[in-house]
Amino acid sequence: MTQHPVEKTPLTLLGLGTMGGALARAWLAAGHPLTVWNRTPARAAALAAEGARVAGSAAEAVAANSLIVLCLLDDASVDEVLAGTDLAGRDLVDLTTGTPARARARAEWARERGARHLDGGIMAVPPMIGVPEAGGYVFYSGSRDLFERHRETLGVPAGTTYVGEDAGFAALYDVALLSAMYGMFAGAAHAFALIRKEDIDPASLAPLLADWLVAMAPAVHQTAEQLRSGDYTKGVVSPLAMQVAGTPTFLSTAEQQGVSPELLSPYFALMRRRLAEGSGEEGLTGVIDLLAR
Amino acid sequence: MTQHPVEKTPLTLLGLGTMGGALARAWLAAGHPLTVWNRTPARAAALAAEGARVAGSAAEAVAANSLIVLCLLDDASVDEVLAGTDLAGRDLVDLTTGTPARARARAEWARERGARHLDGGIMAVPPMIGVPEAGGYVFYSGSRDLFERHRETLGVPAGTTYVGEDAGFAALYDVALLSAMYGMFAGAAHAFALIRKEDIDPASLAPLLADWLVAMAPAVHQTAEQLRSGDYTKGVVSPLAMQVAGTPTFLSTAEQQGVSPELLSPYFALMRRRLAEGSGEEGLTGVIDLLAR
Ligand SMILES: NC(=O)c1ccc[n+]([C@@H]2O[C@H](COP(=O)([O-])OP(=O)(O)OC[C@H]3O[C@@H](n4cnc5c(N)ncnc54)[C@H](OP(=O)(O)O)[C@@H]3O)[C@@H](O)[C@H]2O)c1
Ligand SMILES: NC(=O)c1ccc[n+]([C@@H]2O[C@H](COP(=O)([O-])OP(=O)(O)OC[C@H]3O[C@@H](n4cnc5c(N)ncnc54)[C@H](OP(=O)(O)O)[C@@H]3O)[C@@H](O)[C@H]2O)c1
Repeated sequence: MTQHPVEKTPLTLLGLGTMGGALARAWLAAGHPLTVWNRTPARAAALAAEGARVAGSAAEAVAANSLIVLCLLDDASVDEVLAGTDLAGRDLVDLTTGTPARARARAEWARERGARHLDGGIMAVPPMIGVPEAGGYVFYSGSRDLFERHRETLGVPAGTTYVGEDAGFAALYDVALLSAMYGMFAGAAHAFALIRKEDIDPASLAPLLADWLVAMAPAVHQTAEQLRSGDYTKGVVSPLAMQVAGTPTFLSTAEQQGVSPELLSPYFALMRRRLAEGSGEEGLTGVIDLLAR
Repeated sequence: MTQHPVEKTPLTLLGLGTMGGALARAWLAAGHPLTVWNRTPARAAALAAEGARVAGSAAEAVAANSLIVLCLLDDASVDEVLAGTDLAGRDLVDLTTGTPARARARAEWARERGARHLDGGIMAVPPMIGVPEAGGYVFYSGSRDLFERHRETLGVPAGTTYVGEDAGFAALYDVALLSAMYGMFAGAAHAFALIRKEDIDPASLAPLLADWLVAMAPAVHQTAEQLRSGDYTKGVVSPLAMQVAGTPTFLSTAEQQGVSPELLSPYFALMRRRLAEGSGEEGLTGVIDLLAR
């Protein structure tokens, strides 16, 4: 049997910053015909040497292909770049980070211009782009048709996870995961601060800390089950009452070590509030109810 | 060759609450002669049926063996239980949770009474005790001799990790890891709160969240290296300036979803402070310096 070369979908990429440049290189490396444009032309010129076609304007870049990917600084720069382009019949994939509300508004805006729209939230840093084993991926939401049609092309720079027709969901999942990560980093910062004035090598704490966080992360499955069922006591081995009773040890230790408790105390305060309002037999899930306002 | 039965070290355990009861059962199951005492006698009586020798008083229990393990509610209960016992020549292993300062004071107190002292911080919940594959372990610090001599016995209910001669270190490591865990749980609580008013099953977020946290936890290794070297820019792929620029997206998303930012904003505030005082090319490590006071 003869192997026929597979036709790779041609596409346009607007925005060649750190992330856009990495995306461009991944598509070029995979053999996709790629048209690029960037506000600062030097960045596009650099990619021309690697096989990209450089458009003279955003309008020209948008006219070149039906699949248009955006990777710009923010939603305001998307406005600026797309002003004066003809989007009719275009498949717009916006990888620019933003809020769910901005993504929903942009989807509506695209529809009014006759374009299909898919929003993306990139769960990777540039060095992970085009490196499948690095595990980076992109959340997508909005037009399912668009996603299905371009799934393979979109999967070139990083994995793809489609999370729903609501254009805001990709941003919501993105922000949810990164918010949780910042919480974990805040906790780790507190942990490192605790040992600073002791003769303890931070590199001896790090593996214990990493293993512990990895071991405790799956607790979110129980949280999800409890939120689903509404029964916050199911499967609990460390009741809220016991955990609240333990908080003075954490706060005293911070004080002994000269560490501000500011990163921990808001969570402890919510634990205490929940204990006062709810059941001491619950775990920590009830805290989530207190965050909604 | 004839197999001679191995003599198992006899020991005394004071405190048969949820954790103490689990420890007792692990030692009994492994064939250690175990003497127990508990303030409320019914809990000791239950263990007698499983082979434990029940002492009539704490003093009698302490007199029975040279290795004495304590698993009581708090440091004040240790005072109460050990009052009127003769500790001369005893090896005291205190698994009661407390602060580093309390552990150091207790070590001194034990020394004055002619006892050797080891403090322990249990990184496990009772169902993980006696179940090696569950991965639970205990931090130990204080007398290295005592630890080495009883390492095998101490390793029966859970793994052992010796962290130094300073009696306070076990408590410090314990509190550091649990503090980091609470940070992670706070972040996860925020993440679940963000999706609550949407038609999104929390159980569809949970695996993405768990995988993301597991993937990001190893970032603590870079943090440790940066703390060690004092160079907070080394290996940084997400500079502080870029991350601070992203925080409004997180706060706006929280507001759009009706979620209080109280668990995230203290960390973001420190990121902004560090950016104002330090370098935007750093990652997040500089935040740790701001926690010390
Ligand atoms: N880098 C990461 O780790 C990472 C991770 C996940 C998601 N993201 C997201 O990916 C997007 C791009 O990030 P990046 O790291 O590539 O940022 P970057 O290096 O700062 O690049 C920003 C890009 O936006 C362009 N731009 C900014 N303002 C513009 C305007 N008013 N008009 C036209 N173009 C404008 C820039 O053009 P010039 O070259 O002319 O300045 C450049 O191409 C952001 O939404 C970011 O949140 C980045
Ligand atoms: N359970 C966990 O998940 C866990 C995890 C890690 C560490 N720990 C630590 O392990 C220790 C014990 O926890 P636990 O879960 O077993 O607690 P628990 O079930 O509440 O048991 C407390 C024990 O302390 C005794 N006690 C309390 N006050 C006393 C006093 N004034 N005089 C004499 N005895 C007294 C109780 O005796 P009575 O039976 O007479 O009340 C009981 O034996 C604590 O320091 C805890 O922080 C527990």
